[in-house]
Amino acid sequence: MWPVDSYPNSATEETLDEAAKKQALRMIPYGLFVLTAKNGDDVASATVNWVTQTSFKPPLVAVGIKLDTHPYATVRAAGHFAINVLSASQKDVAQEFFMTVHPEGNRLGSVTIRPGATGAPIINEVPAYWECRLVDVVEQGDHHLFIGEVVEAGVHENPAPPLLMRDTGWNYGG
Amino acid sequence: MWPVDSYPNSATEETLDEAAKKQALRMIPYGLFVLTAKNGDDVASATVNWVTQTSFKPPLVAVGIKLDTHPYATVRAAGHFAINVLSASQKDVAQEFFMTVHPEGNRLGSVTIRPGATGAPIINEVPAYWECRLVDVVEQGDHHLFIGEVVEAGVHENPAPPLLMRDTGWNYGG
Repeated sequence: MWPVDSYPNSATEETLDEAAKKQALRMIPYGLFVLTAKNGDDVASATVNWVTQTSFKPPLVAVGIKLDTHPYATVRAAGHFAINVLSASQKDVAQEFFMTVHPEGNRLGSVTIRPGATGAPIINEVPAYWECRLVDVVEQGDHHLFIGEVVEAGVHENPAPPLLMRDTGWNYGG
Repeated sequence: MWPVDSYPNSATEETLDEAAKKQALRMIPYGLFVLTAKNGDDVASATVNWVTQTSFKPPLVAVGIKLDTHPYATVRAAGHFAINVLSASQKDVAQEFFMTVHPEGNRLGSVTIRPGATGAPIINEVPAYWECRLVDVVEQGDHHLFIGEVVEAGVHENPAPPLLMRDTGWNYGG
């Protein structure tokens, strides 16, 4: 990380048009994913959308996770996370994981899970997933950005296309 | 940033199925944007897609920029960047900014620009844009993630919908 100590030409918050800012930022297209992690017996899961690749070599992915949440604490403690890609027909699963879901055996709410290479639960019903070893956390703002190196991945045969935020009528951004 | 010093259960690179990794990571939906910055008289621009919001308060955005490129050096030196959102009808503009485009007055290739609040060039023809003050750089991998606080934004009336990577037939990820 590279702290920027001075910025001679900084605009102040007062100049920012909040409505324009919200509308502009909501033009970033997103997918919807279920983040999972497991620390000891403690399974965490959450629907996330602030996800992007950040490097080819090594393959790195960033995901924004809200502060003071169970997934936040669990990913930090576990040192890993999995990203389960939701398909266009899994809006209901995205909605389910807005709230805390408690595992029961190999069930996690309406879906089933298996242990991944990192220990993170992998959802069997999703078209694709990958697992990351946590390599960095960017501690800025009300969500922190978790940077992970992809160490395992899987894709179903003929995977269904991913769910797009804009097809759900929801927004998380702005 | 939070370095992860030990990871007892790390999978090795040898276990990673490269084809599955590529296919899974390409299921992340992306938009297409033109990044701009200006350092003194030096204008940099580039088509980018690794963009995500990372915080509401303050409003933060992350963008991945390839190492050893003109935009990389310019954004670091300038301490700012602008993200110009391309509309669904601007695939040709995305293609144009894969290469270096030299400004001539208020022209930048096929589009026109005006100076933003930070000094970054704003493209007049895009449906929306925002400008960021650079607050952090995550130095991991072959692209670094630039974290910016949104300090200015603008949206056209009735903005056209954004261009999606998947509608272009291109990929940048995997």
